[in-house]
Amino acid sequence: MKAIVNIYLKEGVLDPQGKAVHHALGSLGFREVEDVRVGKQIILKLRDGLSDQEAKEEVEQMCEKLLANTVIEDYDIELVR
Amino acid sequence: MKAIVNIYLKEGVLDPQGKAVHHALGSLGFREVEDVRVGKQIILKLRDGLSDQEAKEEVEQMCEKLLANTVIEDYDIELVR
Repeated sequence: MKAIVNIYLKEGVLDPQGKAVHHALGSLGFREVEDVRVGKQIILKLRDGLSDQEAKEEVEQMCEKLLANTVIEDYDIELVR
Repeated sequence: MKAIVNIYLKEGVLDPQGKAVHHALGSLGFREVEDVRVGKQIILKLRDGLSDQEAKEEVEQMCEKLLANTVIEDYDIELVR
């Protein structure tokens, strides 16, 4: 089973990396872009035999304790069999 | 319209950041994790009025030219209205 965790800055938190990418895209001539936000995607391979419920709770714990900085970041979790 | 671009290391490319996260999760007692890969998720807000086809081609160009290092990284693009 795999868990895909997307971690992104909360609305309103300044994203300098996104700003830099936006600027660089503009310099390259991509004028259609209005905003850029850069986040992380973490793919966890979990051992087989976990139920969806167990896996979700476990990955939530991982996010709260290590993967995300919940002061400035939000996350969502998707499970894939 | 938004384009969500996921960028991840190709199979077989060593992921030291993933290894570090894996190790840290182990230290915290999360033993169910067998592997960790860390990638990027870039969310692009595009101006309205682009067709799906145009947006896709444009974002592919951005990935090839700037966002992804296609020697070691793959990417996928998802459009959200």
